[in-house]
Amino acid sequence: MTSESLSARRDGGDGHQPITAAAVAAEIGGRLIGDPDVLVRGVAPLDRAEPYELSFLAHARYVPWFERTRAGVVLVSAALADSVGAPGARIVVDRPMDALVSLLPRFHRGEPRAVGVHPTAIVAASARLGERVTVDAYAVIHDDVTIGDDCWIGAHAVIGAGCSLGRSVRVQSAAVLYPFVDVGDRVLLHSGARVGREGFGFLPTKSGPQRIPHVGRCVLEQDVEVGANSCIDRGSIDDTIIGAGTKIDNLVHIAHNVRIGRMCFIIAQVGIAGSARIEDGVQIGGQAGIGGHLTIGSRASIGGQAGVFGDVPSGETWSGYPARPHKDALRGQAALFRLARLIRPLEKLLARGDES
Amino acid sequence: MTSESLSARRDGGDGHQPITAAAVAAEIGGRLIGDPDVLVRGVAPLDRAEPYELSFLAHARYVPWFERTRAGVVLVSAALADSVGAPGARIVVDRPMDALVSLLPRFHRGEPRAVGVHPTAIVAASARLGERVTVDAYAVIHDDVTIGDDCWIGAHAVIGAGCSLGRSVRVQSAAVLYPFVDVGDRVLLHSGARVGREGFGFLPTKSGPQRIPHVGRCVLEQDVEVGANSCIDRGSIDDTIIGAGTKIDNLVHIAHNVRIGRMCFIIAQVGIAGSARIEDGVQIGGQAGIGGHLTIGSRASIGGQAGVFGDVPSGETWSGYPARPHKDALRGQAALFRLARLIRPLEKLLARGDES
Amino acid sequence: MTSESLSARRDGGDGHQPITAAAVAAEIGGRLIGDPDVLVRGVAPLDRAEPYELSFLAHARYVPWFERTRAGVVLVSAALADSVGAPGARIVVDRPMDALVSLLPRFHRGEPRAVGVHPTAIVAASARLGERVTVDAYAVIHDDVTIGDDCWIGAHAVIGAGCSLGRSVRVQSAAVLYPFVDVGDRVLLHSGARVGREGFGFLPTKSGPQRIPHVGRCVLEQDVEVGANSCIDRGSIDDTIIGAGTKIDNLVHIAHNVRIGRMCFIIAQVGIAGSARIEDGVQIGGQAGIGGHLTIGSRASIGGQAGVFGDVPSGETWSGYPARPHKDALRGQAALFRLARLIRPLEKLLARGDES
Repeated sequence: MTSESLSARRDGGDGHQPITAAAVAAEIGGRLIGDPDVLVRGVAPLDRAEPYELSFLAHARYVPWFERTRAGVVLVSAALADSVGAPGARIVVDRPMDALVSLLPRFHRGEPRAVGVHPTAIVAASARLGERVTVDAYAVIHDDVTIGDDCWIGAHAVIGAGCSLGRSVRVQSAAVLYPFVDVGDRVLLHSGARVGREGFGFLPTKSGPQRIPHVGRCVLEQDVEVGANSCIDRGSIDDTIIGAGTKIDNLVHIAHNVRIGRMCFIIAQVGIAGSARIEDGVQIGGQAGIGGHLTIGSRASIGGQAGVFGDVPSGETWSGYPARPHKDALRGQAALFRLARLIRPLEKLLARGDES
Repeated sequence: MTSESLSARRDGGDGHQPITAAAVAAEIGGRLIGDPDVLVRGVAPLDRAEPYELSFLAHARYVPWFERTRAGVVLVSAALADSVGAPGARIVVDRPMDALVSLLPRFHRGEPRAVGVHPTAIVAASARLGERVTVDAYAVIHDDVTIGDDCWIGAHAVIGAGCSLGRSVRVQSAAVLYPFVDVGDRVLLHSGARVGREGFGFLPTKSGPQRIPHVGRCVLEQDVEVGANSCIDRGSIDDTIIGAGTKIDNLVHIAHNVRIGRMCFIIAQVGIAGSARIEDGVQIGGQAGIGGHLTIGSRASIGGQAGVFGDVPSGETWSGYPARPHKDALRGQAALFRLARLIRPLEKLLARGDES
Repeated sequence: MTSESLSARRDGGDGHQPITAAAVAAEIGGRLIGDPDVLVRGVAPLDRAEPYELSFLAHARYVPWFERTRAGVVLVSAALADSVGAPGARIVVDRPMDALVSLLPRFHRGEPRAVGVHPTAIVAASARLGERVTVDAYAVIHDDVTIGDDCWIGAHAVIGAGCSLGRSVRVQSAAVLYPFVDVGDRVLLHSGARVGREGFGFLPTKSGPQRIPHVGRCVLEQDVEVGANSCIDRGSIDDTIIGAGTKIDNLVHIAHNVRIGRMCFIIAQVGIAGSARIEDGVQIGGQAGIGGHLTIGSRASIGGQAGVFGDVPSGETWSGYPARPHKDALRGQAALFRLARLIRPLEKLLARGDES
């Protein structure tokens, strides 16, 4: 394989029908400057775009990149429309970044999908599959599973006994649903997600800790997304529930009995301890930890790496360890570093006071 | 599938023989009030229990839920025995929550298990399997593996060459044992656990860092549990050892040469750096980090998100970053937030002192 | 299975040709004291070494272990050459630990490897495999994949459509490459690694957050290592790139558009947010978090659990939350704990000042 062929194959978004500069301008309502017939079939940043790719210039600091870009077509803001550079065509548009995002589906390479059950997949006789379901190689679907229409179960995925999946659920490669998980419509589980494990609950006994049997449910409502290698435990007696539209990033841990509301964003490596309540519209920054049995009020925002040891009121932004209202946390941190210069004189001052 | 059928299927603990209120009362030694013949076959919290489910009322704050509950039978404490509500039967018992937990095994749906090797599992000719072993679909058991009686190897699990498993070990779906891991009796490995990877050790060389071959062992003693997607590396020259009865939650990282004692609890997302020693009975809160080569004394307790950069004496509770004895950590945090209000007057005061 | 046989099987490094003490001494240029014909075939620490194993004594604090060791041969430093103890042979060498590491490849048990495609592996007709490639049981290789010479694809690994792997790449069991990932020569992906997921990017819409299609690449340059269960997302428009020789430990999260330079070390459970730039030779301690769009300058070092919210200049060491230059962070922490004793007298002092 030559580096030539590699480079050709590597283009972001390659693989779709090319589109002319004129057609791009028409689609986003932009003003075309240059050759209307330039063809693009992919998207790339200015610094690595090739002549057959579309790029964008939205900030003045990237003008030097624009000067040297090899991109065929560049979306530019009105303020930067006259920047020096030589793409085949430039298209002036109000918000070049937003315009580009609106074009992305056209350039996105989907994964090939073959409807039907791969001959190596194992589907229990008692499982019920809807219409147009895809089950990829080596997937295992256990007893009494229900899978709705248009679901796509990836290679090596395991769907435990008694699970119920709604319509258009996507389970990526090697994700595992433990038994008895309820999954709503259009849920997306990324590779390696583990959903429905019996939670971390033990009873002390003379012969050591004994697992408490978990009979609570694990429910992912519609449009939930669970990131790669994230783990969500089922409830002990109560349920673990992830509300509709909530998006969970990679490597997140959600313990038993946690209830998360609708439309929350849980960034990577967050941990939520048992029985916490996260209300609607909450955002939790990466690596933050939420203590057990706490309530995070609706639309609250928790900073990255925050350690939350108490309830957070609705709408507030908290950060730090232990987490406090963000303004207080910043003031505390600022004071600390001003203190470092004062501590010795203060100690002297107080020592003098003691002596007097 | 109607929402009716979904709801019926979703009941926690469904699927076992129903039991009467009278039989429940007899089993837990409680006093029955109401209809002795009410049948329950599942467990649920008051707010979502159905007439065929058992629930409990242990705190006054849930009395409003009790009023509206549809539960068939409710365990109640003596103090709350006369609360207004209309379950078919109530059973007065000293500790309703404990009583309920004692009943859970009766309501817990086990996973179906077929003893024997699934035809799609691949078991090396040199592997030795005990009696009554289950090997599920697509599991792969490499050369020279020994598996004790009553073990259960889940779908897609991989058991590396030379591993030794005791009796009644449970390896969940998609867990991977790297080669040469020693696993004691009754160990439970959850889905996606990775045990025995060669640790993160490199030698600097002119051509870049070179991996140090790891020849130390990775030993999980009896009754150890390893959570979903947790990772335990094998030793470099020394061994990595997890002591008997120690329970490890999800997404935990344990580096090479770590030795953990007996009956420890390691909560989710904890990281333990190389060659650390964790003695018996230690508890480590979620997301805490233990530095390399440190010793955490027996029965010590480490707070959630703590960053431990020094040895911790036996029996002590440490928290914060950098971790200190918990009382000191709390005092430091309290002082910091009182300081935020004082810092400006203090700076003024010292400036005046300088001028005088 | 008797405990005798277990113990024999458990020796670290067992399974290779034994080597005499004389040959060891010759290989490392050491001075032999004792029986030149003692045979060793494994490596172990002093306290658990058997007569057929090699060990080392590098620090005075291990002399008591040396006294009692059963090791056949022990490498000792000149200063400790005369320590009391009775191994069959001792070999005096400048740096016993380094000498031992140099011998490790001789004692390291490799995994058995069968070149060729296992009959249960699924390789798309359009995939191109190089010479001497191993594809283990149940691996799945999707359409248009290119795999270079001498690659080894482990059991249950999934290689997504359009991926390109260089030469001598090792993909361990159950690792997943999403579609269109570019992997350089000699890359090592550990078990459960998830590389190339579409990143965590959403557009707010009236019907809730909609995924932004990701068309950026995910590139692992040559000699990169990715730890067990670590996750690396592909770029949105820009690329995610991991530079040559960079080593990533277990359970690390790397978000979309992150660019990591050459020869970096990223320790376990680190999280790097979107579009961060990590320059060459950077070291990031365990559980640290790097905020989005930041730059960590070349050869900088970030402490364990640090929370980095701003750019870090080249060559500097930063730590703490929020991260500051390490010296400042230490001074702040020290001041805080001295403050805890002063805060009440200071409050009194200022109150008096207010009254006057």
